Amino acid sequence: MVRSGGNHAEQGNDVSNSEVIEGVYLSSKLDLEELFADVFRPYADKVRIRLPRDIEDPSRIQFSVAWYPEKEAFTPYPNLRLVSSIAAGVDSLINCPSLPASAHLTRIRDNAQADMMAGFAVWQVVWHHRNMGHYLQRQAFSTWDQQNLSVSPKDYTVGVLGYGLMGKAIAEAVAALGFPVVAAVRKQPSEAPAAGISFETGASSIERVAARSQALINVLPLTPQTENILNEDLFNLMPTGARLIQLGRGQHLVDEDLDKALASGQLGGASLDVFRTEPLPEDHRWWRNDKILITPHHASDSSAAIVAKQVTEAAIAAVDGRVPENTVDRTQGY
Amino acid sequence: MVRSGGNHAEQGNDVSNSEVIEGVYLSSKLDLEELFADVFRPYADKVRIRLPRDIEDPSRIQFSVAWYPEKEAFTPYPNLRLVSSIAAGVDSLINCPSLPASAHLTRIRDNAQADMMAGFAVWQVVWHHRNMGHYLQRQAFSTWDQQNLSVSPKDYTVGVLGYGLMGKAIAEAVAALGFPVVAAVRKQPSEAPAAGISFETGASSIERVAARSQALINVLPLTPQTENILNEDLFNLMPTGARLIQLGRGQHLVDEDLDKALASGQLGGASLDVFRTEPLPEDHRWWRNDKILITPHHASDSSAAIVAKQVTEAAIAAVDGRVPENTVDRTQGY
Ligand SMILES: NC(=O)c1ccc[n+]([C@@H]2O[C@H](COP(=O)([O-])OP(=O)(O)OC[C@H]3O[C@@H](n4cnc5c(N)ncnc54)[C@H](OP(=O)(O)O)[C@@H]3O)[C@@H](O)[C@H]2O)c1
Ligand SMILES: NC(=O)c1ccc[n+]([C@@H]2O[C@H](COP(=O)([O-])OP(=O)(O)OC[C@H]3O[C@@H](n4cnc5c(N)ncnc54)[C@H](OP(=O)(O)O)[C@@H]3O)[C@@H](O)[C@H]2O)c1
Repeated sequence: MVRSGGNHAEQGNDVSNSEVIEGVYLSSKLDLEELFADVFRPYADKVRIRLPRDIEDPSRIQFSVAWYPEKEAFTPYPNLRLVSSIAAGVDSLINCPSLPASAHLTRIRDNAQADMMAGFAVWQVVWHHRNMGHYLQRQAFSTWDQQNLSVSPKDYTVGVLGYGLMGKAIAEAVAALGFPVVAAVRKQPSEAPAAGISFETGASSIERVAARSQALINVLPLTPQTENILNEDLFNLMPTGARLIQLGRGQHLVDEDLDKALASGQLGGASLDVFRTEPLPEDHRWWRNDKILITPHHASDSSAAIVAKQVTEAAIAAVDGRVPENTVDRTQGY
Repeated sequence: MVRSGGNHAEQGNDVSNSEVIEGVYLSSKLDLEELFADVFRPYADKVRIRLPRDIEDPSRIQFSVAWYPEKEAFTPYPNLRLVSSIAAGVDSLINCPSLPASAHLTRIRDNAQADMMAGFAVWQVVWHHRNMGHYLQRQAFSTWDQQNLSVSPKDYTVGVLGYGLMGKAIAEAVAALGFPVVAAVRKQPSEAPAAGISFETGASSIERVAARSQALINVLPLTPQTENILNEDLFNLMPTGARLIQLGRGQHLVDEDLDKALASGQLGGASLDVFRTEPLPEDHRWWRNDKILITPHHASDSSAAIVAKQVTEAAIAAVDGRVPENTVDRTQGY
């Protein structure tokens, strides 16, 4: 995209408008200006966001749109009132040492993303439940081979770790297909769950969910409490041959423990969308493990249009002195 | 399975019980005795079913459990009151010239099968919507490659042909993932559809559904009206690059028309579970077409236990002079 020049000129005009709130894109991984300039254009009378190299006076910057910022990324900006993630997760912001304590921290909440996440998760559940990989292999050999598979959905329990925006959409979609779903929650949600969904609550609920799950889906946020939660002890509680569907963050999983569980047969297979190092290095052993299905952190994306809308609203709220919607609790970490 | 001998002896005892209704397994494709002897055992005081070679007096046979019977399969049995399919479809029975006009014809109605069908259909929809095959190919080359894909489910309409037991379960599961679903029905169903589902009704409803469908799922029964319904004219109405998900019967599809539509790009891909000749011959061109995903008529199966229960109940009803549940309308063909 060669639109940056044009943008700058265009947005330059808006500076005359004293109402425009100024922001900065901060990411070590993505060119956020390239990704978002178009979708922020309808809000040009409200916000102007630029890359650090284009900012003359950092003291005028009141908010940041961020994703895996560099360690010292926030340091130059003394007057930040808001830092917004471009996604559901905020772990890369909370873990940034220069994140200013005084700024509100927000996430994106996109219901269409939850739908995409649910579709992706259901696909992975059926991949494992129906052993769909078998058919793809058979097709490669021009071979008709009905498997002798007759596990009814009602005898295949699917566990969900992290019953938030994503986890709830996943649980409902999986349950709608006749799979019993059990979700781990810290306290019983006030709203009754959809048919087919039950809860394990309180301490060790994660362990109790794992113990019941033929397939276990992780969509927890990454926090000090959830780091390394997918480990040997948990795998050993699961039914032999169970499957792991890992959609949270790479740091939830103890990589070597997955290798061991797959090698011993304790786990029968895994779908991994997130990794400790992303992109997963080309020479990583997992690419060639036929029990592992790899996708490139692409289970779901928030839509750029929603990002622009929610960031703009949050910036206005923060500057007005209100707590923006979708503010996360830093002490909780999500 | 080497249980036939034992069965015969066991069931032999029941003959003394005059209440036991006698049936015959008739199939050119499957060893129905091997498949079903176990599940009929709990009903041994009510029904006894054997293979033709084991039947001494065909006049005592009052019902048949059948699947792709030979042309003259029913001829030896003058007193059939019931012919039951082992599955949802009855086309292989209706098309059998020796099917006695006087017998009731029943199908199996298995809600767990509808769940499996819905899971399979959803998997195929997401396969196409998210271009999941891309990730499998990339994994083979150890390559991290997020696709530039951002079609939200709400902008991807899924059409359903055949809104019966299977089609309704499919429509609901697909709609629950945020895809707009449009189903072709002959007349507006009395029950309001689930959120996200709409109908095209009346003549040319199938054409109007096709015209709106990014992915079109066929689960029609095979009847004289529906034969060859998936043809060039229909494909030409669909959005360019749309996908076909064919779960009905092979005879619904004009094979050469699919080839043409895929070659021209009018269709972007197809998932085929059913074929004119099954098993699909090893040398068939479709095995090696990378726009076609082949599964071996295995989208869903009725559970053997449900078959035994429903056939037994139907046999009792037919012998009692009642119309069995799940009787199909022969003039309609399903
Ligand atoms: N792979 C991808 O493409 C992708 C895309 C989107 C999101 N994600 C991942 O999914 C995560 C969740 O997203 P979301 O939008 O669903 O977040 P969310 O709405 O904040 O939900 C998080 C849920 O996790 C629960 N939770 C947090 N810590 C817990 C713990 N220690 N034990 C049990 N439950 C705990 C929370 O429970 P309470 O209800 O008790 O607070 C909440 O229900 C993100 O943080 C990210 O890691 C991945
Ligand atoms: N691939 C597999 O593994 C597999 C497994 C199960 C079933 N199937 C296929 O799926 C078919 C349907 O199964 P089902 O259990 O859903 O049957 P069903 O309950 O009898 O439903 C059939 C539906 O098709 C509709 N229909 C019939 N002819 C039509 C026409 N000319 N135009 C429009 N709609 C028409 C019927 O409409 P009305 O409501 O107007 O009667 C009914 O709603 C089976 O016959 C079989 O071919 C395949």
